[in-house]
Amino acid sequence: MSCVASVGTQRSAPGAPRVIVAGATGFTGALAAYLLWRHPDFELVGVTGRSEQGTPLQELYPRYRVPLAIEPLELERLEGIDAAIVAYPHAAAAPTVGALRDLGARVVDLSADFRLSALSDYERWYGEHPRPELMAQAVYGLTELYRSRIAGASIVANPGCYPTASLLALAPLARAGLIADVVIDAKQGISGAGRVFDETTHLSIAGENIVPYKVAAHRHTPEIEEQLRVLDPAHRELKVQFQAHLVPLDQGEIASCYVTTTRPIDAAELRALYADAYTGEPFIELSERPPGVLEVRETNFCRVFAAADEHTGKVVAFGSIDNLWKGTSSQALQNLNLMFGYPETRGLL
Amino acid sequence: MSCVASVGTQRSAPGAPRVIVAGATGFTGALAAYLLWRHPDFELVGVTGRSEQGTPLQELYPRYRVPLAIEPLELERLEGIDAAIVAYPHAAAAPTVGALRDLGARVVDLSADFRLSALSDYERWYGEHPRPELMAQAVYGLTELYRSRIAGASIVANPGCYPTASLLALAPLARAGLIADVVIDAKQGISGAGRVFDETTHLSIAGENIVPYKVAAHRHTPEIEEQLRVLDPAHRELKVQFQAHLVPLDQGEIASCYVTTTRPIDAAELRALYADAYTGEPFIELSERPPGVLEVRETNFCRVFAAADEHTGKVVAFGSIDNLWKGTSSQALQNLNLMFGYPETRGLL
Amino acid sequence: MSCVASVGTQRSAPGAPRVIVAGATGFTGALAAYLLWRHPDFELVGVTGRSEQGTPLQELYPRYRVPLAIEPLELERLEGIDAAIVAYPHAAAAPTVGALRDLGARVVDLSADFRLSALSDYERWYGEHPRPELMAQAVYGLTELYRSRIAGASIVANPGCYPTASLLALAPLARAGLIADVVIDAKQGISGAGRVFDETTHLSIAGENIVPYKVAAHRHTPEIEEQLRVLDPAHRELKVQFQAHLVPLDQGEIASCYVTTTRPIDAAELRALYADAYTGEPFIELSERPPGVLEVRETNFCRVFAAADEHTGKVVAFGSIDNLWKGTSSQALQNLNLMFGYPETRGLL
Amino acid sequence: MSCVASVGTQRSAPGAPRVIVAGATGFTGALAAYLLWRHPDFELVGVTGRSEQGTPLQELYPRYRVPLAIEPLELERLEGIDAAIVAYPHAAAAPTVGALRDLGARVVDLSADFRLSALSDYERWYGEHPRPELMAQAVYGLTELYRSRIAGASIVANPGCYPTASLLALAPLARAGLIADVVIDAKQGISGAGRVFDETTHLSIAGENIVPYKVAAHRHTPEIEEQLRVLDPAHRELKVQFQAHLVPLDQGEIASCYVTTTRPIDAAELRALYADAYTGEPFIELSERPPGVLEVRETNFCRVFAAADEHTGKVVAFGSIDNLWKGTSSQALQNLNLMFGYPETRGLL
Repeated sequence: MSCVASVGTQRSAPGAPRVIVAGATGFTGALAAYLLWRHPDFELVGVTGRSEQGTPLQELYPRYRVPLAIEPLELERLEGIDAAIVAYPHAAAAPTVGALRDLGARVVDLSADFRLSALSDYERWYGEHPRPELMAQAVYGLTELYRSRIAGASIVANPGCYPTASLLALAPLARAGLIADVVIDAKQGISGAGRVFDETTHLSIAGENIVPYKVAAHRHTPEIEEQLRVLDPAHRELKVQFQAHLVPLDQGEIASCYVTTTRPIDAAELRALYADAYTGEPFIELSERPPGVLEVRETNFCRVFAAADEHTGKVVAFGSIDNLWKGTSSQALQNLNLMFGYPETRGLL
Repeated sequence: MSCVASVGTQRSAPGAPRVIVAGATGFTGALAAYLLWRHPDFELVGVTGRSEQGTPLQELYPRYRVPLAIEPLELERLEGIDAAIVAYPHAAAAPTVGALRDLGARVVDLSADFRLSALSDYERWYGEHPRPELMAQAVYGLTELYRSRIAGASIVANPGCYPTASLLALAPLARAGLIADVVIDAKQGISGAGRVFDETTHLSIAGENIVPYKVAAHRHTPEIEEQLRVLDPAHRELKVQFQAHLVPLDQGEIASCYVTTTRPIDAAELRALYADAYTGEPFIELSERPPGVLEVRETNFCRVFAAADEHTGKVVAFGSIDNLWKGTSSQALQNLNLMFGYPETRGLL
Repeated sequence: MSCVASVGTQRSAPGAPRVIVAGATGFTGALAAYLLWRHPDFELVGVTGRSEQGTPLQELYPRYRVPLAIEPLELERLEGIDAAIVAYPHAAAAPTVGALRDLGARVVDLSADFRLSALSDYERWYGEHPRPELMAQAVYGLTELYRSRIAGASIVANPGCYPTASLLALAPLARAGLIADVVIDAKQGISGAGRVFDETTHLSIAGENIVPYKVAAHRHTPEIEEQLRVLDPAHRELKVQFQAHLVPLDQGEIASCYVTTTRPIDAAELRALYADAYTGEPFIELSERPPGVLEVRETNFCRVFAAADEHTGKVVAFGSIDNLWKGTSSQALQNLNLMFGYPETRGLL
Repeated sequence: MSCVASVGTQRSAPGAPRVIVAGATGFTGALAAYLLWRHPDFELVGVTGRSEQGTPLQELYPRYRVPLAIEPLELERLEGIDAAIVAYPHAAAAPTVGALRDLGARVVDLSADFRLSALSDYERWYGEHPRPELMAQAVYGLTELYRSRIAGASIVANPGCYPTASLLALAPLARAGLIADVVIDAKQGISGAGRVFDETTHLSIAGENIVPYKVAAHRHTPEIEEQLRVLDPAHRELKVQFQAHLVPLDQGEIASCYVTTTRPIDAAELRALYADAYTGEPFIELSERPPGVLEVRETNFCRVFAAADEHTGKVVAFGSIDNLWKGTSSQALQNLNLMFGYPETRGLL
């Protein structure tokens, strides 16, 4: 019996930038490859991985109909590629990012290796940095915040999914200098654990469960804190209380943010603040009710909702995304669109 | 706070056929509207419903970003529309299909009202037929079987989701006159129950459950039997044993078919039979292993797998689809593509 | 075909207290009936409801094998009952609680009608109180906090599930006067929505979703605030930021509590505080890692975990329960055990 | 912080039979240990495993509050035990079963090693048998069929979960010589895959999926065929078409059986046949509608429903169980109860 039908050749235009995905066997690399494959203006020329070499990506991920086979990463064969998405684990990514840069490729790195600007912050959470000299070249890739810098960047440090949801919920408050203290309680589907096979992901254990993890020690905290400091007009330092939970769905993530404000803010001002911040943003949807994650599943949208609590005086803000899409892989495409001069929404609507 | 961003205007070309969805508040009508909305060559000009009038479809179905508001169906305002998808309950559909035909629209009917060619069969399962004179105009809309007739049809009776999965699994055997007897055991996600709020769909009751329903009395049986008779070279009558089950996922359906054959058939012949039948089909994927429904979720693909069981002599064949997509709404678009001369895959890949 | 086998007669001892469940058609009333039915020392003599009269409870809830049929509540037939569990909606419960009290029955009320001590608090959230004169008779039924008062009470106001998980996580801190400010982010399975059939509970909508609800306006807040005030040595008033979310499982609930403390507290002191508070408690399990809700499913246990966050100085405390069991119905039995002089764990291990 | 509270000492009576579970780290062994631990008349004296030695079972399986630590199996320390449940993989079980027999223990074996009476059948599916001389001592442990033989057996071969559900659905027909041909389509929750960590069990892959497996080659087929032959009055050989599917829930299994009968049978006769077969059975519930698996979750019950299909002349019969309970571990306890002279329901209601 013949194998699964290929969806045929790519639809990319002649002369389209040539892109690879390094590390395409994991959930986010595979999705990035799929999004590139169906993108009208990029040509996906290779998918690499340490395992599963020779296996077509679409056998590993039947939903992602990409017929290219997993290959080893052989830099000598990559002369002339225009861009790469690197989906490696933290610390493992930096050397490959550097090698691809040396070949002239522009890189979107999905790992944490270039997200923090201070080397000491990196070392505290991840150990020695493999290529510290490249850190200055990297731009933090939360598209809505750094659009123009991303357009010209050679290395884009794609944000973590938790920081993406959290910062999009909080940015209007941060820019207005309104955050005195913040607790972020995040919930994520099991795909956030990745292609990892253990008790965390076994349906019989994870399926009727809610599990907090990494209590009082989450590596996404410094990334969020740095960005909130940059956004704050006075660049104040904040200590963010961040807590992640796994809940039994596949894809979806919400950051529930509880903000003690620096001064009282009422509903009307809050509304205006968010409207001003996000009007015209193609992928931010201000919702009129608390946003469920199903509303953004398999999209690059982030739904944001904020409310002033008259009882406590706090502001409650929610950011709802698909952790694999806007949280990771489709945001990488959004950034690549900017880097190559395409409309930001190309291939993503 | 401003409402959810609209995805903007439709992308349909000027002069594109103008289409409505009648009955867009249910799961399948809403999906059909969404697929039309994002289709490059149809213009969705209206979505109707008896309830929720005035509500934008995207508030009812946040995942389907269609800003059109639900309207009452007012035939006098529909002069000049080119086509309609009717997503009404069985028996309720026929009068509206007729009225839209009278306006000159070509109609894809998602109900069972025009699926059976014999009035007596219809009456047995559904009662009196509201517009029996139209039955002769209707073409059965299983695209892969009736492509050329569909292209010229004024009414297309879109198949049920169970018959779609079952017939695509069985057609190669039926055409070869190989089916002596068949048991079809089908499993479907909860979306198959539709936008119905009762014990069938409550997560606390349906979520950790497997429930057979309509035992020994399923209305999809005559539809399958008629098509198997048509496909059979000798037009033999078969009594099909069909049984449906609800299982706890959202979208997805598999028909597991157990065929007693009219003569022995070995693996090689079986392989050739299916390859001959489906080579070149854009939406049929012959798989090399039993197909999971996740592989086709939110696509118009049907995965088909067949095996000869040496132990029993039977053939086991599986058809795996998304019940809302290929099982209903995307197959309606596939048919509309044919009816208006577009490539069959337009807007569906 | 004969109907489902009854599990036979009750196993209760002769002379056991005679108990009814008023409102047994909902999730919590039905579970309470089941727990009474299998309890060795209570005799369940009736289950009442406005709907489904005449239907055996085990047809409505096949998992709960209670053959008694749903009856109307007829007070004149209830002479001589010893106790009742009332599972009515808020505001509807108080008149029935009162009527049952007039008959001499001791009552555990699952509604909010007697949970707040101040009439004004009740009126703010629920409107006029039907039987305010009974409020002074009621004891708040969080067993671990009010054991001796519950033993002698005529009306026990069973706590809400959110307050149960939250207060058990926070009580050791509250009693030590350590809570300066607290954010409670709670997640609950769909059974928390009850036997309600709408979009909240439809598997296709709720199944791959995470949904915050009642933002900045949750009726459980005053209940938590009152209890924290009572527990605090100085009876300070706290404004609690409480937020609930529905996540896609059946039963299970976790309250994640983020506490700004009145003074610094280190890990050792925190450990000692919780150990002192809960050593010997039969249903409190201090866990050594963040507690998943699966660990307590269908039990009366509450798992508690607390950690001091050196980075922020806050304390993070979790309380994990089954919302239908310890959150509601099994806690009602735990209270009934106390009220009738049985060991607290009877029928619950 | 102190560890999880132990539920205290076992409640078993002095002089209760002393039992071990060999292989308690898997799902079924762990559940068997839990059921023994809470059984009033057995004393669980040890739980063994190759991995996780030294870990209390309740840390590995928090829901099963058994404080005993996993130990290596050391036969010299097992002198004087009265019974054992062996939960080893197929082929690995027989040597341990034999060794425990040599110590005088009575054994319930959860593997397939002693389920088939013909050595050649075993060898075809599993390879060489490690202890073929013991096969004659073993009794097939489908309690409802072999009650008296089980009571006196030294080795009980606990049935597979698929044969349990299938045979309980089919036994009344088989005993009446009514089965001419049968197709069994079985669906099972993910716990059926066991404590295995791979794509089969990852929530992101299994969670929205329905997956047929082992097409035309399932090792449970000969077990079912042998038992149907034994039950048939004429001991006719049947070729059973058996097909298994994994569906996205934790525990639960249904066997949907499609029977071509040897002679016509109407609804009344069918009803009488099943009522005669199962009246008085404590764990068989004849249901009046198709049985959902939720109805038997975490119980030893099997729900059976059969209907005559007038259209096809076939009989459709369903057997619904919890695959880990009646399908495996609680049936093992049911058998142990018989072997030691206790009421069959002891510890199981």
